[in-house]
Amino acid sequence: GANKNSIKIIGEQTDNYAQGYFVYDSKKSGALTVSHLRFGPRPINSPYLVSQGNFVSCSQYSFIGRHRVLEFAKPGATVLLNSPFSPEETWKRFPKEWQTMAIEKKLKIFTIDASHVAKESGMGGRTNTVMQTCFFALSGVLPRDEAIEQIKKSIKKTYARKGDDVVQKNFKAVDNSLEGLREMKIPAQIEPDAHVVVPPSYEGANDFVKNVTAKIIAGDGDLLPVSAFPAMDGWPSGTTKYEKRNLADVIPVWDSSLCIQCNKCVTVCPHAAIRSKYYPEAEIANAPETFKSVAFKARNFPGNRFTIQVAPDDCTGCTLCSQVCPAKDKNNPGHKAIDMAEQPPLREAEGKNFDFFLSLPDPKRADMTSDVKGVQFMPPLIEFSGACAGCGETPYIKMLTQLLGDRLYVANATGCSSIYGGNLPTTPYTTDSFGRGPAWANSLFEDNAEFGFGMRLAVDEQTKIAEELLRSLQDQVGEEIVTAILGNEQKDEKSIAEQRERIADLRHKLGQIDSPDARRLIRYSNFLVKKSVWIIGGDGWAYDIGYGGVDHVLATGANVKILVLDTEVYSNTGGQASKSTPTGAIAKFAASGKRAPKKDLAHIAMQYGNIYVARVAIGARDNQFFNALKEAEAYDGPALIIAYSPCVAHGYDLGQGLAHQELAVKTGYWPLVRFNPMLAAEGKNPLKLDSPKPSVDVAEFMRLETRFKALERMNPEMAKELLNEARFQAAENYARYELLAKREWPLVPPVGAEQPDAPKPEVVVKTDDK
Amino acid sequence: GANKNSIKIIGEQTDNYAQGYFVYDSKKSGALTVSHLRFGPRPINSPYLVSQGNFVSCSQYSFIGRHRVLEFAKPGATVLLNSPFSPEETWKRFPKEWQTMAIEKKLKIFTIDASHVAKESGMGGRTNTVMQTCFFALSGVLPRDEAIEQIKKSIKKTYARKGDDVVQKNFKAVDNSLEGLREMKIPAQIEPDAHVVVPPSYEGANDFVKNVTAKIIAGDGDLLPVSAFPAMDGWPSGTTKYEKRNLADVIPVWDSSLCIQCNKCVTVCPHAAIRSKYYPEAEIANAPETFKSVAFKARNFPGNRFTIQVAPDDCTGCTLCSQVCPAKDKNNPGHKAIDMAEQPPLREAEGKNFDFFLSLPDPKRADMTSDVKGVQFMPPLIEFSGACAGCGETPYIKMLTQLLGDRLYVANATGCSSIYGGNLPTTPYTTDSFGRGPAWANSLFEDNAEFGFGMRLAVDEQTKIAEELLRSLQDQVGEEIVTAILGNEQKDEKSIAEQRERIADLRHKLGQIDSPDARRLIRYSNFLVKKSVWIIGGDGWAYDIGYGGVDHVLATGANVKILVLDTEVYSNTGGQASKSTPTGAIAKFAASGKRAPKKDLAHIAMQYGNIYVARVAIGARDNQFFNALKEAEAYDGPALIIAYSPCVAHGYDLGQGLAHQELAVKTGYWPLVRFNPMLAAEGKNPLKLDSPKPSVDVAEFMRLETRFKALERMNPEMAKELLNEARFQAAENYARYELLAKREWPLVPPVGAEQPDAPKPEVVVKTDDK
Repeated sequence: GANKNSIKIIGEQTDNYAQGYFVYDSKKSGALTVSHLRFGPRPINSPYLVSQGNFVSCSQYSFIGRHRVLEFAKPGATVLLNSPFSPEETWKRFPKEWQTMAIEKKLKIFTIDASHVAKESGMGGRTNTVMQTCFFALSGVLPRDEAIEQIKKSIKKTYARKGDDVVQKNFKAVDNSLEGLREMKIPAQIEPDAHVVVPPSYEGANDFVKNVTAKIIAGDGDLLPVSAFPAMDGWPSGTTKYEKRNLADVIPVWDSSLCIQCNKCVTVCPHAAIRSKYYPEAEIANAPETFKSVAFKARNFPGNRFTIQVAPDDCTGCTLCSQVCPAKDKNNPGHKAIDMAEQPPLREAEGKNFDFFLSLPDPKRADMTSDVKGVQFMPPLIEFSGACAGCGETPYIKMLTQLLGDRLYVANATGCSSIYGGNLPTTPYTTDSFGRGPAWANSLFEDNAEFGFGMRLAVDEQTKIAEELLRSLQDQVGEEIVTAILGNEQKDEKSIAEQRERIADLRHKLGQIDSPDARRLIRYSNFLVKKSVWIIGGDGWAYDIGYGGVDHVLATGANVKILVLDTEVYSNTGGQASKSTPTGAIAKFAASGKRAPKKDLAHIAMQYGNIYVARVAIGARDNQFFNALKEAEAYDGPALIIAYSPCVAHGYDLGQGLAHQELAVKTGYWPLVRFNPMLAAEGKNPLKLDSPKPSVDVAEFMRLETRFKALERMNPEMAKELLNEARFQAAENYARYELLAKREWPLVPPVGAEQPDAPKPEVVVKTDDK
Repeated sequence: GANKNSIKIIGEQTDNYAQGYFVYDSKKSGALTVSHLRFGPRPINSPYLVSQGNFVSCSQYSFIGRHRVLEFAKPGATVLLNSPFSPEETWKRFPKEWQTMAIEKKLKIFTIDASHVAKESGMGGRTNTVMQTCFFALSGVLPRDEAIEQIKKSIKKTYARKGDDVVQKNFKAVDNSLEGLREMKIPAQIEPDAHVVVPPSYEGANDFVKNVTAKIIAGDGDLLPVSAFPAMDGWPSGTTKYEKRNLADVIPVWDSSLCIQCNKCVTVCPHAAIRSKYYPEAEIANAPETFKSVAFKARNFPGNRFTIQVAPDDCTGCTLCSQVCPAKDKNNPGHKAIDMAEQPPLREAEGKNFDFFLSLPDPKRADMTSDVKGVQFMPPLIEFSGACAGCGETPYIKMLTQLLGDRLYVANATGCSSIYGGNLPTTPYTTDSFGRGPAWANSLFEDNAEFGFGMRLAVDEQTKIAEELLRSLQDQVGEEIVTAILGNEQKDEKSIAEQRERIADLRHKLGQIDSPDARRLIRYSNFLVKKSVWIIGGDGWAYDIGYGGVDHVLATGANVKILVLDTEVYSNTGGQASKSTPTGAIAKFAASGKRAPKKDLAHIAMQYGNIYVARVAIGARDNQFFNALKEAEAYDGPALIIAYSPCVAHGYDLGQGLAHQELAVKTGYWPLVRFNPMLAAEGKNPLKLDSPKPSVDVAEFMRLETRFKALERMNPEMAKELLNEARFQAAENYARYELLAKREWPLVPPVGAEQPDAPKPEVVVKTDDK
């Protein structure tokens, strides 16, 4: 799906060094990227962009009418469009401006239903071979027959190690592409009822978004003066919602009558594109016609309604919400409370429904029940990121933002999570209805743990300043409020809400005091609300490049929490092996299968004894992850949560990511554990093994993922050897955790207790004299 | 003992900005250092050395007559000498040159028996307070009474946290110092029988040593031109033997009749200053008169003699050899086969004996029995280093050089071991009687594991080149020798000796072939002998600053061995806490006692499964360390040996280092373990717990070391809390190792075996179609 979102241009001949210009996108985010490539008989050294191309290709139907595509075509140019519709129908759906350009420029326009061809050819959603074939068939870069031959050669070379069936599927896709390619007959006149292009709406957005973000989104970033950029150390957040990427072929449809209100669909959504809310019945009065709701099934909220709502422009169509839905229709197998359906007919109405949904009041944080369902009623403060469809990482971060809200500070290591976490011009981190959100910053691969540790020190220092100022102003603001604020341990949402109210009070009082200290305390007062510092990154960071710092920061005993989004490979840089990569997997630098065992970071961290550690897989046991979050947060010390994260690099349709996680746990490949030092302090065994004894051969898991499967085709001998090694490791790791979790605890008398008959020392140590 | 070796000078008034010049040494190596300090009423900014001092102090009696001391004194200057003799006797022992200078310059010379005063004052061997008091009493930097008052103030400030008894001891030392200070009556004439200064002998040394090393040792390094230094990438080794530091007050005396020939004294010596050899009886014919030997008790060597010999100028008098000696005289308690005795009367004769001992042939490597005793007959290839007297690190390195000889490559991290390992102008690493020795280089704190990994790659590459050249030259040198060389696995000393012989043969043959490849193979032929790459450093490196690299290099599976000399603190940089520092210890950055547990590096490394890991303490179980060395070496993969190393930073007389190690093991503070992946490959539990169940309270260990003891004085509450925590950890760590060592193994069916009734997968993973 890498080129689903790209527009390609082959440019005119500008001089005899350059004959073509071509744009290609390798960005996984789904954001618009326009890329250029030039072909020539001699090396092309001049750096320039092409404004008018001989050939323009657009891989994403949703860009039609929204982005500049035909503008790039010079008169008489060839245009290739990926469209699910026939050429005639596609023409009718062109906006007026596009029809006019097509006629005036005398363009030769071709369409291909790339998704359909790819699916027919057994390639699932991967359209790159289809688009590539059409591109070579039409662009004239090479003679058509030669081009097709070269494509097939290249396919053989690229996919041979993935097996002959993959090669054959691609060959079939090439043939089907050529058959599926259709030329559009351009009428002499535009259609009388053609619609006009509606520019994206930035209604309600602030000036920065309107003047800067919007321009960059539109592809006009080059035109902005330096002075348009913020002179502060930050970037306005919550702007992915303006992108309206509209990537999904299919989106979820909610059957409110079947729904059991478990919020699982909301939990697993990587893009926060499906949400749930409960709200007073009265709110429904002004709902759009198709807006759905049912009575909220919760004892403490009589008269409330409940809604599950999709954001149709922001959904990526990954299907995870439907996969996870447990509410099946007994009379209609295959129908669930969440089904996937074609997006275009639903888009407009659901867009309005989503806007209405957002306008409904958010449930109160203080009312949150402490479980997976409860936390999903809190607004997600990361939304619509550029992560891949079906990304296994983002649901973890999303729940973290829901649990902690604006009290969350994130130090983000370089990697996928820093890319989709801050993919300027837009940012997915956003604010709640009070305008409060998490603080987020990205540091390097090699120092992110240290960076987060610094955040903690800075937060604590500012809290200290606020507390000191508060004490020094006691006579002026009154003893009662000072005692109440300083005495509040803020262990739950209720006491945090109270703290916020008291701080609002305090600020009001301070506003009436004309002193530098009062003004300073207003500035620092927010630090009287407890903060939580989370250090986030992938396995390339945590197991490898940043590991020295991860270990050192954890060992300081500081109150920082580390969340490792473990894809078991360097995902963002293109699939290099990390120390997290498991035995038997193929990756760059481990092209013939990794021999060494996966580093057990959880087990390593546990040996310190004073670090909270968990190994989790949200797709296998969402409540175990939730408990780990809660426990990590409650522990006044360091924590490490290692989160199994399905990734496109694993080589399967991520719509199956939840089932893969479940299998990873059932085979012992990924044991779920929690190690809580607070239990040890109570004299209990701190280790809990949360997953059952392996009941499935790990081979059943490995055979479903190309990262493992590919080795069997390349080197069956080696694959067998490494499979056996992987089996051994899975069984062995589980057994070791089990042994440690089941052990008698404590094995020694309680701390401080003297043994009645302690043996006398047998070693005589002499003093200094000889 | 830090200033035992320093010469201090207060210089003449050279201008009105500078009134004094002073030399002070903080080097622990015992090597001569001349340091300068200037006092003045105004800040002194001019950088210069003083050639003629108003005051000169020499803290080391052995420097008298050997180093320039009185040369630094200007006419009429005051001189302070640490001497065990009375002023009259000291005068008589002055060489002729010193007596002449004292008379001609009209010097005022004072002596103090600093060691005696320190011992009387309960300060053991620490003479710094004594020398400092005398310095201030004589130098005139401050009025005497004011100076003494300031010294006591400073003592109070410095030692308050170590307890009142330490303060009182120091006060007593000050008073005793003033009482013990004696002025020398300088006669008008020199003594008729005064000896002349014998310059150090560099007999047999190469030109570089004579022309460069010798000049730097003499303190004339400043006079050397740049061209005197080697233009190659190295520095001639084996030169500490020319230093003749002569530091020991007492040296071991061997009672050959009591000796049981266990070689334990040789094993524990940190400076390779006591050695053993067996040799044919005939060799003894030309032995010096006092040279001792007995029949060698070994079945396979009839007619051989056995000798234990001390190097009297190189011994530091640490007493470890005598402490470890198990051969006691039943009729004379307190007498052992190794007793310590005053050095001066023994020095000359034992010096000759040691020279003779060195001239005896070394036992053959191929005859080495594979045990602690056997390896001690191999020549140590690190000797007479500048490590502290009683250093706990060097015995480990020494045994490594004995076991591997010249096949050893060392990548040394920055730290104590890089200082005493390459303390230019001399190097303790040396060569055997064939002129072969280990290769050694020092890299940074943060990259030493990587540096050693690079050594391994370089060695392997050169071996590959040699093997390829050898194959390509097969027709010319003959198939037989090629097959023999390439087929030799070199698993023991015998086959390695055969390999060396064949290579000598090969070189002879190659010398007769006139081709570039033959000449290249001569150059690379040494790489046909198996090499062993060891990465060495302290805990500051391995647990902290270089840990990321240690972990990564171990995880590569490369055949590199890591030896961590664990002093549990940054020793060389002055005692900062590392992640190895145990709970309850005081260190810089942990001044109120370290709360966090010690990082269990062994346990961490074991989780990979394919790394050989050992935790050793040579003073507790020398054979366990030897076995670890052998097993690490035999394993074709990475190894990590963590060696408990007593250190001056622990705060006790290092003559007791062996007993402390034993206690560390008996209390469970330092469990001895070995984890051998080769056992796992045989289906056996790879973990062996080599130390018995803790039988002594860890408090018994902690109360003997100032690093722990000091906390009790500063903060008894905290000390108690952390002691209990330490008790818990000791018991807990041992219990965990025990659990893992005793577990059933393997817990899973043998690799590759199918379980007959393996349950079917319960998870259905859907394919791509929706």
